[in-house]
Amino acid sequence: MSDPRPIGVFDSGMGGLTVMRALMARLPNESFLYLGDTARLPYGTKSADTVRRYALQAAQALVARGVKAVVIACNTASVSLPAVRETLAPLPVIGVIEPGAQAALAVAPEGPVGVIATEGTVKGGAYRAAIRAAGGETVPIAQQACPLFVPMAEEGLVNGPIVEAVVRRYLDPLLATVPKPKALLLGCTHYPVLKAAIAKVVGSDVTLVDSAVAAANAVAKLVDERGLVNSNGAGHRSVRFLATDAPDRFANVGEIFLGQPIDPGAVELIDLQ
Amino acid sequence: MSDPRPIGVFDSGMGGLTVMRALMARLPNESFLYLGDTARLPYGTKSADTVRRYALQAAQALVARGVKAVVIACNTASVSLPAVRETLAPLPVIGVIEPGAQAALAVAPEGPVGVIATEGTVKGGAYRAAIRAAGGETVPIAQQACPLFVPMAEEGLVNGPIVEAVVRRYLDPLLATVPKPKALLLGCTHYPVLKAAIAKVVGSDVTLVDSAVAAANAVAKLVDERGLVNSNGAGHRSVRFLATDAPDRFANVGEIFLGQPIDPGAVELIDLQ
Repeated sequence: MSDPRPIGVFDSGMGGLTVMRALMARLPNESFLYLGDTARLPYGTKSADTVRRYALQAAQALVARGVKAVVIACNTASVSLPAVRETLAPLPVIGVIEPGAQAALAVAPEGPVGVIATEGTVKGGAYRAAIRAAGGETVPIAQQACPLFVPMAEEGLVNGPIVEAVVRRYLDPLLATVPKPKALLLGCTHYPVLKAAIAKVVGSDVTLVDSAVAAANAVAKLVDERGLVNSNGAGHRSVRFLATDAPDRFANVGEIFLGQPIDPGAVELIDLQ
Repeated sequence: MSDPRPIGVFDSGMGGLTVMRALMARLPNESFLYLGDTARLPYGTKSADTVRRYALQAAQALVARGVKAVVIACNTASVSLPAVRETLAPLPVIGVIEPGAQAALAVAPEGPVGVIATEGTVKGGAYRAAIRAAGGETVPIAQQACPLFVPMAEEGLVNGPIVEAVVRRYLDPLLATVPKPKALLLGCTHYPVLKAAIAKVVGSDVTLVDSAVAAANAVAKLVDERGLVNSNGAGHRSVRFLATDAPDRFANVGEIFLGQPIDPGAVELIDLQ
């Protein structure tokens, strides 16, 4: 039995393409349909209710296009995971928070764990809750919102003195906490493209944990367990993109995060309203 | 005849509060109702069609609450000015672009004029068109998008080495154009809070032009001409706020732009969908 249906992936914009990149590498035989809700980005400054409403619309748009699983490739939108799971059941739905939290605990079982994310994700406390739920009940956790990381990354400003100064501005207080974090969880899908600058600031005694790779492993396991694998082999897969606004910008900026060019003609404009 | 109805002001978020601040200072007897479409900010990266749709919804929400005039306190949303004017006629509607362009020409009648704004405003070319329409047919114009200014300002990061480095990153190429701009138009309502850092980088031979003050003068003139003045005197006026999401964040961040505290209890949450 082979299941050729694509895996659906959605995000508020282009950041989730770092998750898409990890998924494409981990699952070379699978097709993917990515939805970026670019008309309403960023989700990071919006309330949980609003984010939940938007996420349900995005997930349903993917289901309407025949996906076999949904990946919420957006840390902020992960507050909607229970609601999306309930609405789409029995279709499998996977987020990035739990895999990321588990990967951080694998690196630093006793902590301390540092979490950097958008304002919304930090306030929502999703990573804290996921670390607690994954067995890290007593692990010390320090969180820091880094609002400038997303616009810097989207401008392609990912290294150099400005980036390092901004990274220091956010991370110096976090690194000064006692005891110092052993693992630093990149709690926003935009942050992997800033990984080199972040690594330079935090030094070699702090391990950076990227939830995109952890999420890709979790999706691979789930697709296998549920008998959803596409066994037709590579070369047969399709990778398509949907955006709710400005498909040209999606293709241009998206390239930074996907790590390869996106043909603007392959980005379809859709309306979620 | 006295007209106690409030003047409506809207923006994609908090930036328009710099215009509100100029209006409150220029028109001390008038009441104001401000709407920040915080659920859907920023408008700067969205397409003109999307921005036009959002602006019409915001303007109509103000009209439904009995305003006597509407100020589009958002450079990006000013692409919607003709559509909003047509829809609300005969209610007067004023933007920030034309007053800003006229103020820049008053400072530098022969130019060159530099314009800094969001990506959307620069691409839309609204300031270029307004400078041309205001008599500056042959004035050299150089434009520069500054995507990091808005998130920096909203974080309250308005001076110091990071801000100056980011200002230089955007303005050095603009200042290197020959001939050098005589006037620099702050084409985004967020930018006035960065004025000191911008002034330090551009030097004293470039005049900064703030369209908020110009827009406030234009509104004062129009209210007078149309017989819409509230002659009940100061102390009778009310200043209220509407936000489409996160009223607490609106009050906190808005303070940076309004230049005075905002009581979170004075911010009403509304839905424009």
